Amino acid sequence: MVKWIRYVRDNEEDYGILYEDKIIPKGTLEKILKLSFPKNLEQLIESWENYQQKFLDLQGYKDEEGILLSDVSKVLPPLLDPPKIICLGLNYYDHAKESNMPIPDEPPIFLKPRTCINGPYDDVIVPPITKQVDYEVELAIIIGKKAKRVSEERALGYVFGYICFNDISARDLQFKDKQWTRGKSLDTFAPIGPWIVTKDELNPDNLTLSCKVNGELRQNSSTKFMIYKSSKIVSWLSQGITLEPGDIIATGTPSGVGAFYKPEPKYLEDGDIVECFVEGIGSLRNRIVFK
Amino acid sequence: MVKWIRYVRDNEEDYGILYEDKIIPKGTLEKILKLSFPKNLEQLIESWENYQQKFLDLQGYKDEEGILLSDVSKVLPPLLDPPKIICLGLNYYDHAKESNMPIPDEPPIFLKPRTCINGPYDDVIVPPITKQVDYEVELAIIIGKKAKRVSEERALGYVFGYICFNDISARDLQFKDKQWTRGKSLDTFAPIGPWIVTKDELNPDNLTLSCKVNGELRQNSSTKFMIYKSSKIVSWLSQGITLEPGDIIATGTPSGVGAFYKPEPKYLEDGDIVECFVEGIGSLRNRIVFK
Repeated sequence: MVKWIRYVRDNEEDYGILYEDKIIPKGTLEKILKLSFPKNLEQLIESWENYQQKFLDLQGYKDEEGILLSDVSKVLPPLLDPPKIICLGLNYYDHAKESNMPIPDEPPIFLKPRTCINGPYDDVIVPPITKQVDYEVELAIIIGKKAKRVSEERALGYVFGYICFNDISARDLQFKDKQWTRGKSLDTFAPIGPWIVTKDELNPDNLTLSCKVNGELRQNSSTKFMIYKSSKIVSWLSQGITLEPGDIIATGTPSGVGAFYKPEPKYLEDGDIVECFVEGIGSLRNRIVFK
Repeated sequence: MVKWIRYVRDNEEDYGILYEDKIIPKGTLEKILKLSFPKNLEQLIESWENYQQKFLDLQGYKDEEGILLSDVSKVLPPLLDPPKIICLGLNYYDHAKESNMPIPDEPPIFLKPRTCINGPYDDVIVPPITKQVDYEVELAIIIGKKAKRVSEERALGYVFGYICFNDISARDLQFKDKQWTRGKSLDTFAPIGPWIVTKDELNPDNLTLSCKVNGELRQNSSTKFMIYKSSKIVSWLSQGITLEPGDIIATGTPSGVGAFYKPEPKYLEDGDIVECFVEGIGSLRNRIVFK
């Protein structure tokens, strides 16, 4: 299992892996593994098959070659320009129930544009056109290889890894429009990361995930309650939509979103801190800023 | 007004302009205008301000330097990798009425992924997951400059040009899912082109548009019946979603789609030829192939 991270240090953008508690930058990896790496993470994903075996051990690694996470000036979203971001709705029984929606035999999907992409620790900017902003913690799949009409059995072979995804939603726009797209598509409304965990050893069907607002636990579930599991999602989508390396597929959110809180909704407010966690991956931590 | 076309000739991809009845390739334009052009059309759009004035006349042009359209082996979609494709629903009064949908105060939107992009004369491939495929002729806007919260008055200043767009839709998936995205997102379901017409002299609010299936006129209207006009669309979307150079915005379809034909729907069948026309731009002509 490798954690790929993109970051800024000394005003330079770079990527590398998170190894134990330190980042090993691309340049150091090249030295240790005697390999040259692609310019960016998108290209690495496309050519991962050529590199994968080299990561079985990092015997040549000396601890002093790593960088403390706290020594980078910014952790960037691991993908800045995914070909597409596909999101599933109503893919947890308890969330469909709290939404008063029948459980569909196939989950509805929507897309988010790349202009939604936001860093794991950056502010979510809420524009004046919405007043009802909400969080949704999700496990997201990163596609590694072009997938077209693939079987469920082979589907996970097309996956590169996983990230934590917060599907920020403007509920007033989402419900007024009936089509969910606009309310889900506002700039900065997709914090992702904090890094990509490659699929090895990670079972996507049994990860706890949670969301806290200002420290208060709001969502707390497990991907084992997903209706469509990751392998089925990839296979099912690929029957009509070719999946491409770097595509992000957000697999849906469990119950506990602000819109359906009882006795009344708990929407996000200016200054709120939202933390989304997925087991085996890590946490996003974003401040909500109305402006 | 300049028509930018992307094509394949002698197994090489190239772009150029359509001038009267001939293509002037990029290389010839460079010679005539004593300029060097970017590698592809996407980059030209981003830097169009530097070139625009040079196109006021092409005095040095000699007719024998052009290529007949019929001499290129393939006309490609003018954009292969738009940052996003935003589509409006219910933006013509008559189409909202035929759909039995109330006219919303703001039109619903959805996105299509880039894997939908199809050439102006290429086959639309219908996969086995749908049986009810339909056409929708639309005027589409190509964004030229980054637009964020721009006013309606200044909105068209951010536009590069216009294309003809066929929003192919799998109605069975669209209506079953309620969210329209999946039914609109299948591979090859967005034939575009046949070229981009720059905005000069083209009034997007007064263009006839039509769609024929096997020669039978099915849609026949004018963009003057659009509820949100192009300038309003750009301004309104940009309040929450940053528009980027190369973004495609499909502005909605008029009445006459197959799904609402009386006494019964007229869905597309294997082998059907669909022709979509927008005045001042040109026509798409695509064959429907079930496979």
